[in-house]
Amino acid sequence: MITEAEQRDAQAYAADRLAAAGIVLTPAEREQIEVADFGLGRLAETGLQLVVYVNTERVCAKELVLFPGQLCPEHRHPPFEGTPGKEETFRCRAGVVHLHVEGEGEIVLRPGEQFTIPPDTLHWFQAGDEGAIVSEFSTQSRDELDVFTDPQIVR
Amino acid sequence: MITEAEQRDAQAYAADRLAAAGIVLTPAEREQIEVADFGLGRLAETGLQLVVYVNTERVCAKELVLFPGQLCPEHRHPPFEGTPGKEETFRCRAGVVHLHVEGEGEIVLRPGEQFTIPPDTLHWFQAGDEGAIVSEFSTQSRDELDVFTDPQIVR
Repeated sequence: MITEAEQRDAQAYAADRLAAAGIVLTPAEREQIEVADFGLGRLAETGLQLVVYVNTERVCAKELVLFPGQLCPEHRHPPFEGTPGKEETFRCRAGVVHLHVEGEGEIVLRPGEQFTIPPDTLHWFQAGDEGAIVSEFSTQSRDELDVFTDPQIVR
Repeated sequence: MITEAEQRDAQAYAADRLAAAGIVLTPAEREQIEVADFGLGRLAETGLQLVVYVNTERVCAKELVLFPGQLCPEHRHPPFEGTPGKEETFRCRAGVVHLHVEGEGEIVLRPGEQFTIPPDTLHWFQAGDEGAIVSEFSTQSRDELDVFTDPQIVR
């Protein structure tokens, strides 16, 4: 749903923002920056750029990079294989992120601020006017299991 | 085993190095930087400064800050409560860290490089001449369960 040029530009944007924040990537990591448009084809508004550092059966860590105003749509991480589902801590590194969590309302995270989202809990988030970098510390990521509220979304 | 002045100086060093690397802490996190001398009373040579971002039953994330040449002594994270023991990924953020892992020998990590240490596996690490910052992504930390090779060590 996104063109090769869009993907390349989004990867370059993410690499630049991470470098500006002092976060060093290997050349292989830079080439493998994931660009997710959630199948909607409007990346600038709804999407996410990701660097996955590690994703084992037990632990996952990522950097999420968002364009100014870019939004990651509402979803939850359901239980699977006897686990309660993915538990995520979001820690803002740069910019501002507006995090919306079921039962909590809006949580504004500025650099150095963080919030832990329990498993199976609806959440969505959006970067402020300067974009954002968010470190995610979590249990295993199984993106294909995520349940999005918008039925048009394909992860 | 360390004086209040040593502790304060080590906290200030860690806060400065993190700030220089672009890693933002909250004021509360800065005040709570953990200084570990492992009960040996020679912090400059053997010790560690730590910021614990999160440590739930499932996920832990920390920054480790080391003085130039400072060493974290050999230990392993044994199985507990039906788990295989703590699994850790070390990702170098600044400086150089020399990581020694049972069965792997020495692994030199420069900024952007990482290594995952399996549970219950002996390891120790030492910063290079410029000190180091290492992000740790892991399962739950239960420091009191760590098994150190040197019987004089108290964590």
